[in-house]
Parts: sequence; C-alpha cells; structure tokens
Amino acid sequence: MSHGAFPTSRPSGPGTGPAPTGPGPGPAPGPASRGTAATGRACADPAAAALAGGAHGPAALEPLLHTVLDALGTGARDRRGPLPPGGPKVVADRLRTALHPVLPEDGGGPREALATLVKALAEGAADPADPHCAAHLHCPPLAVAAAADLAAAALNPSLDSWDQAPAATALETELTRAVAALVYPRSPLPDAVVTSGGTESNLVALLLARERARATGARTVQVVCGTNAHHSVHRAAWLLGLPTPVTVACDAGRVLPAALDRALADTAGPALVVATAGTTDEGLIDPLDQLARVATTYGAELHVDAAYGGALLFSDTLRGRLDGLDRAVTVTLDLHKLGWQPVPAGLLAVRDTTALEPLTHQTDYLNADDDTEAGLPDLLGRSLRTTRRPDAFKMAVTFRALGRTGLARLVEHCVHAAERLAALADGHPRLRRRPGPVGISTVLLRPAAADDLARTDGEDAGDAYVAGVRRRLLTDGRAVVGRARARDADGHTRLWLKATLLHPAVRPTDLEALAETLAETRP
Amino acid sequence: MSHGAFPTSRPSGPGTGPAPTGPGPGPAPGPASRGTAATGRACADPAAAALAGGAHGPAALEPLLHTVLDALGTGARDRRGPLPPGGPKVVADRLRTALHPVLPEDGGGPREALATLVKALAEGAADPADPHCAAHLHCPPLAVAAAADLAAAALNPSLDSWDQAPAATALETELTRAVAALVYPRSPLPDAVVTSGGTESNLVALLLARERARATGARTVQVVCGTNAHHSVHRAAWLLGLPTPVTVACDAGRVLPAALDRALADTAGPALVVATAGTTDEGLIDPLDQLARVATTYGAELHVDAAYGGALLFSDTLRGRLDGLDRAVTVTLDLHKLGWQPVPAGLLAVRDTTALEPLTHQTDYLNADDDTEAGLPDLLGRSLRTTRRPDAFKMAVTFRALGRTGLARLVEHCVHAAERLAALADGHPRLRRRPGPVGISTVLLRPAAADDLARTDGEDAGDAYVAGVRRRLLTDGRAVVGRARARDADGHTRLWLKATLLHPAVRPTDLEALAETLAETRP
Repeated sequence: MSHGAFPTSRPSGPGTGPAPTGPGPGPAPGPASRGTAATGRACADPAAAALAGGAHGPAALEPLLHTVLDALGTGARDRRGPLPPGGPKVVADRLRTALHPVLPEDGGGPREALATLVKALAEGAADPADPHCAAHLHCPPLAVAAAADLAAAALNPSLDSWDQAPAATALETELTRAVAALVYPRSPLPDAVVTSGGTESNLVALLLARERARATGARTVQVVCGTNAHHSVHRAAWLLGLPTPVTVACDAGRVLPAALDRALADTAGPALVVATAGTTDEGLIDPLDQLARVATTYGAELHVDAAYGGALLFSDTLRGRLDGLDRAVTVTLDLHKLGWQPVPAGLLAVRDTTALEPLTHQTDYLNADDDTEAGLPDLLGRSLRTTRRPDAFKMAVTFRALGRTGLARLVEHCVHAAERLAALADGHPRLRRRPGPVGISTVLLRPAAADDLARTDGEDAGDAYVAGVRRRLLTDGRAVVGRARARDADGHTRLWLKATLLHPAVRPTDLEALAETLAETRP
Repeated sequence: MSHGAFPTSRPSGPGTGPAPTGPGPGPAPGPASRGTAATGRACADPAAAALAGGAHGPAALEPLLHTVLDALGTGARDRRGPLPPGGPKVVADRLRTALHPVLPEDGGGPREALATLVKALAEGAADPADPHCAAHLHCPPLAVAAAADLAAAALNPSLDSWDQAPAATALETELTRAVAALVYPRSPLPDAVVTSGGTESNLVALLLARERARATGARTVQVVCGTNAHHSVHRAAWLLGLPTPVTVACDAGRVLPAALDRALADTAGPALVVATAGTTDEGLIDPLDQLARVATTYGAELHVDAAYGGALLFSDTLRGRLDGLDRAVTVTLDLHKLGWQPVPAGLLAVRDTTALEPLTHQTDYLNADDDTEAGLPDLLGRSLRTTRRPDAFKMAVTFRALGRTGLARLVEHCVHAAERLAALADGHPRLRRRPGPVGISTVLLRPAAADDLARTDGEDAGDAYVAGVRRRLLTDGRAVVGRARARDADGHTRLWLKATLLHPAVRPTDLEALAETLAETRP
C-alpha cells in the first residue's frame, strides 16, 4: 500500500500507535498491523498527536503529567493566596497575555502548551484547597478523585451505548444503585441517574413530574417551592414550558408548612412540591417530614433538592437531620459539593426505578431493538445527554478509598468547622452572626462596622459596606467569601458575608484568621 | 483552641493542609495558620483525604497518578484487543467482582482503590485508541488534552461566578470567541457557549429559537429537520415543549431542498430549519447553502448541527465542504468527536453574541447587580448549568499544542483513511460499500454473505446477518463497528456495518486488517 493515501497526515511517535496486543480470542486472525511500529510521515511535533489511551497511552501521558504537576505547583506559589490579587481586569489581562494567540497556525507542542496554560490557570484560580476560599458550594477535590478522573479522560468511555463503555456501564449501574439505597433504604428498587450537577438533577426531576402528570391526562404540573429554593428550580420550569412556580413563604430561611398548605389548597391539578435540604444561602434544611405530610394531604408529590445536604447521609450522627427525605419521589444529590469530587458529580435518586421510564429513548445506531434483545445493555434512557463521560467512576474510586465512615468524617469536619466559626463570631467584638442555628456548614456574618453604618446612614449603606468588604477581599486576593440576603433578628432583611466551609481539613487557626480578616477588612 | 471542636474529623497528611503561601498583598496580616503543618487526629488513611489543589496538591497527586498509569497499562494489556471479550454479562460480572462492595464501611486507601478500579475500567473498556474501535463518533483523546483536563479537575474552577474561576473565566471568553470566529469569519461579534456535547448544543439552539419566536409574540417555534437529523433534535423539542418536528425527506442521506421548500410552505408561524453537517449514520453534509436560501425565502432561520463536520473548518482543503455554514444563526460543534478531546467538549456558536440574551440569568449569590456594576464578570448566562467545569481549558491547550494546521492534519488523516477503507471495500470480493460519496470519515459496508442471504432468505435475513456480525465482533472482542440503515443503489433500505474513523494515526495496514475482519466474520 502506498502512503499516497495519507499524504500529509501521518502523525506518529510514542502513544499514537495501536495497542501492541495479541489477536482477540475469536476464530479469525487478529489485525495484521498490531505490534508493529508506526511508520510514515510525521507531524511537526509527533508528541502533540500522541493518544492518552491504548497500551502506549501511559508512556505518552507520564511526561505531560509531570509538566502539569510542576505548573500547578508554580502557579499556586505565584498566586500567593486563595485567589489572584488585582481584580478581574488584571487577572484577565495576564491570562490573555499567556494565551495569545488562542489558535495559532502552528502548534508549539504539548509541553510548552501545558507549562504555559496550566501555570496561568493555577496562578489565576480561586483555589478551594485554600481554607480561605470559602464563598460557594465549591469544594476542593480529593487527589484520589482527580486521579481517577484522569483514567476516565484517557479511556474516554461514553455511556450512551454499551459498545463505548462495557465496564463503565456496569460500574455506573452498581454505583447509582448504591447511592440510591442510601437515600431510600426501605425501597425495594431505588435507582439514580448521573447528572452534571444539582441544576440538571432538578431539571430531570421536574421533567419526570411533567411526564407523570401528562400520563394521567393532565396538561402540565404546577411546581410549588419555597422562596429559599435554588434558582435552578425556576429555570427548569421555564425550560420545560411549565407554569411559573408558586413560591411559598419561609420563616428564618425554611419553608413554613402552613404556608405550603395554603398554597396547595389554591393549586388545581397535579403539583410537585420542591423542598430544599441545604439552602444555598444558609445551608438550612426544610422540615422535610412535615412538608411531605402536607403534600400527601393534597395528593401532591415531593422532590427534595439535597444537592448540599445529601452528603449528611454518610454520617451516623448527622443523617437524622434529613428525616423525611425518603418520602420524596426524587432527590437531587451532588458530590461536587460535600463529596469532594471534581465537577461534575451530580445525581438524581428516584424511589423506584420505574420513575425513570419517561427518559426511555430509542435510536437505531445506539440501542436497536434486536441489540437490546440480544443482551446489549441500554443506558441511553438514563440521561438527557447522549455522549456522556463516566462521572460515576471517580465517585466509585472515592467510595472505595475512604469508605462510608471516611466520607462521614470529612462531612462532620466541615459541620464542626462551621459551628466553630459561628462560635468565634459570637464571641467577637466586631463580628455578628445571623441569629439562629448554623446551616450544615454555612455561616452568615456581618461586620459590626456595617451595622454601625446602617444606623447612621441607613440600611442600604450598611449592605453596601458588606458587599464592599467582599469585593475588597476578592480584589486583594486575601479571601473568597460569598454574600447572602437573610432576615435579621429584628425582622429586617440584610446582606451578610457568607462562609461556606467545604474544606475537609480546615484548621481552627484557619478559622480564627478568617474571622479576623472579615472583621478587619474595609471596603 | 481545643481540638474538641473537631472531635473525630482531623484528616491530615500530605496535601491536606492549606497552601504554605505568604500573606496576601492586602493591608491586614495574612492568616496565621499558613505554612504550619497540619496537626490533630488523623483519618484511618490520611492520604485518602489529601487534596488535589493547593501547593501540596502536586505532591499528593504524583504517586496516585503513577498508580493510575500503571493500572491503565495493565488493563490495556489484559484486555488484549479493542474491547474485552465475552459480551455484556462476562464483562459486568468481572467488573462487579472488582467493585464489590461499592460503598464499604471503611476505606482501603487511594492506592488500592485506584489500582483495582482503574485496571477494571481499562480492562473492560472499548478503547478508541485501538484502530479497530471504530463504531461511533467516539474519539481517542489526545494525551495533551487528557493531561490538561487533570489541571481542571485538580483546581476545580466553576464558571458560574468569577470568584470561583478568575482565570478560567477569561480563558473561556477568549476560546469561545476564537472558535466562533472560525465559524463566522465575516461576523463582527460572533460568540459561542460551551456545552456537554452536541445534544445540549442542539437543545440550547432550539431554546434560543423558542425565545426569539416568543419575543415576536408567537407562542412557539416549529422545528423542521431532515429524516437524517440527530435524535437529539427531536428530544430537545420534547423537552422544551415545542411541537413535534416536521421531518423532511432526504435523498441518499441528505436533505432535499425541494422537500424543505414544500415543508416550509405548509408551516405557519416562526420556523427553525435544522440541517446537519456530518450525519451520525453516514457522515454526510446537507446542502447547507441551498437549504439556507430556501429558509430565507420563507423567513425561517437555520441551525446547523455540525457536531461531526464542524472540525473541517480547521482544514484549508476540507473547509469548502461546509459552504453556507455561516448562514446559520446557530451552529453545533463538538470537539469530543473530530477534535480528540475527552468528553465533554461541546460548543454552540452564534452569529451574534446578542443571540445569547435569552440565557441571561440573575441570582443574587452569583451575580448581584452591584457586583456586576463593580466589574465582576458574569458567566451565569452562558449555560443552562450552574456549576460548570472549564472544558474550554483542554481545548485551549490542544489548540496551542497542535495549532490550526496540526489539527487540520489529524482531520485530514481521518478523511483520507475513510477514503482508503472505501477503496479497499470497493476492491474486495466479499465486501460491498454503500454507493455514493464517502461521508467525512464514515464508511458503510456490507458483507457479500449478507447480500447472498437476502437473495435466498429475504431482506430481513440479510439485515439480521449484518447485525449478527456486529454482535459477534463485540462478543469476541475483535472489533467495534457500528450499524446504520441506509438506502442501497436499488432503492431498498438495508442494514450496514458502519466504520467511523476517528483514530488520528490509523495505518493502512490497520484498515486492511479491519476490512478482512469484517469480510470474514460470521454471526
């Protein structure tokens, strides 16, 4: 055969050749080409086209991974804090200088590209592995989970058909059942699907509710949620063409069962109540059991968004806070929050596997009837996506490495850290904590200076002070804290600094330093 | 401070402590704790809780990555082919044996977990780095892209707010503009958003069309697509509550402009025409320019699903096949197909950035008005997701490593490989190719034995033979090829074996061996 068929396109070099394996076990001879060296005309930089998979993949990856680790270390050192100082324009200008041009005509090879851009990414990161990066439900991933994710990236299994992911298909099936059994210990056939996060989980929950309603002959389903519900509930209703959700009043950040009762009394047709186990602003858990009882009274169904709080299920001492969770027909979980997975690691658990039937989907090239009848498993109906990487894999590796009790210890550590920070604030002359219980691992704080300003210049001035402190910390690169509006003891809604503690090894001294920083910083 | 506040939850060890960095540049002292060693009671296996980020992350990751590379190599060797032999039950049983129990009470540590499960994943993979794994638009990722993805996983930036992803925010902005400029070279303000793949890109395209229609006072938009369109177009319409798409006849796998004309003449209200540049079954490109002209005649808009074919834009010699692409209002792209990225790497390009306005979304904790006014960039309105990993990062590293010309060479290699395989089939006594041009890098083949059987026992028997050959190859672990129904020269629609050539270094001898395997294997 002439190389003329491949005139300008013969990448070669380590890792690009096929796996030098023996023939398959079938009766016919294996491909003749296996085991021979790649030949032909090379790319400008053959290593640039080396593949991550196959028997040569590890050798191709190894030097590149060392480059990545070096650049991660250099970038973290050069950043000198939880996020880069200077604010958005300074950070963007530096990144653009490193990046330019985004798509050069000719490549500079993998080592240079990784060294330059990984350093730029790390230097410009808000790194949740720094204990003073505590704004959002943005966790520092475990090394074991990030390492596992590399294997998924290298092999690139896609869960839309068995012949793209033979082992990953079986692994996801087992992992999702195990997670579902945590949520629904008394259900005979619980199940779960993997999603890109809580937002997609809530979307699928509302979609399944819409289809259940349609199956009864109704036109749609009415979502009823607290004013404390995540914005993704409203967005999902918009996306799916559902009526605007009815919102229900909260008391101190949690849905009032009496208010839900009134709302359902006024709702015609099928309704889905959405409760939250771990609100984004405060980490509070709605009274799930009571809300489930009210929903049942009206024949409504309950979905619980436990993207934040679901991980309490790992802990013997904290699990009780979720009482009533298994009365929900669907539960959103998210192990890229309390769970320390790299994004994405969302899940939606269903009480019974038949609840997933509306996702069933058939297309000849992926799950033809005769293939399914012949025993090829069909996972296409387990996602709204088609191509889908095995995010269950990193979760499974983490489960095995830490065990349930190991995960429980990390969850408990974050919960205790929040209690400790709350106690520090309560004892601090220049900080004040939002009254009431600490929500999972979230603490709302307000500098006394903001209260002083509110008294002299009005509430808006006090709130502006809080927002200004947050932006000052971000611009100086000293701490990453969030913001939340929440009701104060006097009934006024005010702006607070929010610390969301997801660092599984945060130390008492880190918390003391954070409290001091929040008390001392001025806008 | 007493350790009593952290009674059972003191993971420590390498990588769990905060970055030993100096104080930030602000006026107040940095956190007192930085730079001191972690203390307190340890987990059962402290290394299990080590973090991937921070200054200690690289040291924690390094031994784990070696474990991953070793296990990837062992798994690939033990697999002995493009996929594991034995079929679904054998593969699932072996995986379950390795995995059990999914969530043990106590963890075994990260090394054991990674060694066991990465080997199981690799041993049970359908590895697209093997040139005989050629069923789907399922590419072997480049080592450089997989290595870049590790950095994203370790730092875990999330693109829903600037304070979770300062540098990644700027990088995504630049990367998406550069990709959009490839699609729309004549547009002053092209833009793109990153998605989980072609399916989500098509969903967002239909959503944007729905919202444009609503903005004109219409109730909905009518999707009009070819019978060759990807199933995700229909699924998106269902999800969004749109009318069932009107399907338009194809000739030899491509939409007939005259049929589109008739369909649009019968359509009332706003319509979105969906054309395909690279069909899933055959890799064919619809006559984009003609379809755009017909759409314009009726005041309809055009969306092009170029998930497969979009990468031809990299190549000077192949770009012309996409003439008319920039007449589309939105274009689906997907670099986890021809682009060699680990999943996910989807994009949706829009001709003008204002087209993205319907995604605008405001929530106080992520993009409060005063924060946006103060200069904090807002990316929440660039996705249907909330938390979102920076998939643009691996794309940017790949662009820099290979350059446009390097990517073009890989695309051209796959296109030439398909032409070569087609020529091999045309010259083979026991294979027949679907008549007509080769579609991008997809070849449809039929063993002569299937045709013989169809003549003696009927068409169903012939098709069953083809499906049986495919399943035999999968069960024996010898090759992974797909299947597609397509019209034959005599007008009959028959089942074909589908080879989708995405291996950027496949060799002539690999193709010869694949052709022989397909010709010789019996069900």
